[in-house]
Amino acid sequence: MKVGIIGLGQMGSGMAASLLKAEQSVTVYNRSPAKAEPLARRGATVAASIADACKGDAVFTMLANDDAVAETVFSKGGLIDSLASGAVHISSSTISVALAGQLTDAHAHKGQLFVSAPVFGRPDVAASGQLAVVAAGTDAALDRARPFLEAIGQKLFIVSRTPRDANLIKLSGNFLIASVIESLGEALALIAKAGLDRRQYVEILTSTMFDAPVYKTYGALIAEARFEPAGFGAPLGQKDIRLALAAAEELGVAMPVANLLHDRFLRLIATGGASLDWSAIGAIAALDAGIRPGDGRRS
Amino acid sequence: MKVGIIGLGQMGSGMAASLLKAEQSVTVYNRSPAKAEPLARRGATVAASIADACKGDAVFTMLANDDAVAETVFSKGGLIDSLASGAVHISSSTISVALAGQLTDAHAHKGQLFVSAPVFGRPDVAASGQLAVVAAGTDAALDRARPFLEAIGQKLFIVSRTPRDANLIKLSGNFLIASVIESLGEALALIAKAGLDRRQYVEILTSTMFDAPVYKTYGALIAEARFEPAGFGAPLGQKDIRLALAAAEELGVAMPVANLLHDRFLRLIATGGASLDWSAIGAIAALDAGIRPGDGRRS
Repeated sequence: MKVGIIGLGQMGSGMAASLLKAEQSVTVYNRSPAKAEPLARRGATVAASIADACKGDAVFTMLANDDAVAETVFSKGGLIDSLASGAVHISSSTISVALAGQLTDAHAHKGQLFVSAPVFGRPDVAASGQLAVVAAGTDAALDRARPFLEAIGQKLFIVSRTPRDANLIKLSGNFLIASVIESLGEALALIAKAGLDRRQYVEILTSTMFDAPVYKTYGALIAEARFEPAGFGAPLGQKDIRLALAAAEELGVAMPVANLLHDRFLRLIATGGASLDWSAIGAIAALDAGIRPGDGRRS
Repeated sequence: MKVGIIGLGQMGSGMAASLLKAEQSVTVYNRSPAKAEPLARRGATVAASIADACKGDAVFTMLANDDAVAETVFSKGGLIDSLASGAVHISSSTISVALAGQLTDAHAHKGQLFVSAPVFGRPDVAASGQLAVVAAGTDAALDRARPFLEAIGQKLFIVSRTPRDANLIKLSGNFLIASVIESLGEALALIAKAGLDRRQYVEILTSTMFDAPVYKTYGALIAEARFEPAGFGAPLGQKDIRLALAAAEELGVAMPVANLLHDRFLRLIATGGASLDWSAIGAIAALDAGIRPGDGRRS
């Protein structure tokens, strides 16, 4: 089976590596071609254009935002122009529910298949093929996409026949992760200001009620104020909360914590945090409590 | 070893049962004596007064709030009057950091030992002896308390020599649980309003990034709108957030999510929810989105 992958950031590169490991015939494309080199050395074909990456049974897009996906799909020589009838576009980017709806309609109009398949997991998880994949699409589209989805993910959840439902689940999941980051940031500010050890506190949490990857990952990052290099950048977090709020507005759902998180991201980025990991919103409570980096252990 | 336990609500009764199972000599006291009967049948001695429950090596208090603990300890015939020099008061109630400080001073003044040992776990966990216990006190106090703490808990964390530190950790932990309830409530409102299945959504969460007891327990309660009978009542939740905010104010830590949660509890209780489980704040987002109970699965 032949598969293309467009977008070789940290996540896309990890997914391409998983597809190669699954012995698929993989063609990769990235706007700046240097990122394709490590994959070429592992057996990937490097496409010279988006159209060249669309010649197989399926093509993934894993891009930063709606604009990048829309350009890649709708521009001249993009996916709509290039994908064969019956081939499947698998959109793994975290995009808006609205764009997922437009992609569904546009591909259907051309007789192409479409699956929304956003993923949960940071870059190290993508590289090890252990992503959780949340997929939605018609039965025909999902049948075509399945071997590729199984290659990139350890777990595959088929949630609906309507692609945009998968995007809503992804956005709401990222909202939940950001909520964990913010609330952990507030709790850790309290613990540190009282002179207690933040790391022991995270150990207590994660060995009891909060024994989950999300608390382990973000508890450690916040307790150690380790926000560089960014595994998932602050502007991407801001975008995801904005898209969750856009979906919530369309559906008529008031989300007060999501609004609070949106303000946190605005502030983080406006005060110089654009290059940091999104978990840096978890440092704002400590900053506002007058805690300096390195405080937090009673002597 | 002889141990008393004062306060036989759902949590205190479970802890007393665990102490009996550990073959300790247990004396129980409750203001309304009917609650002592099931424990008497299992071998506990029923005390006629608080003083009678204070004649052993240790006495637990597991009461609803600061007022109940202060009355039990400081009233005539209370713990301060009754506990032998060298015996230990183990305070497992979720009380204010300020009251924990007062208890520490008052017991020290009388030559009595004091340990703050709040616990994590709902009543079923208490009944099975699997609580997580967070304890703080002097070495002498902790040595005396240890066999009893090990009898009620599966995990014991010694966090500091200053008792009130354990209370701060407990309060911040309950703040984190309430944050999970609120953010799950918002996410589930979004999922339900889009016509998707709330239970499948919780399954996806809890089999990936959110694979923790807190998401399983509260995800199920909120998805099924199952808020009665209350395992942990809304007024207790409101109290804990109020105490977390009081500690935060004393320490100078702004906690915007905690403020939002406090408003949620005010509203829940003001609109008739006082008898519900505290997880009922997780239904407010659905209510505000115009979702009726039973909605949430697309036909």
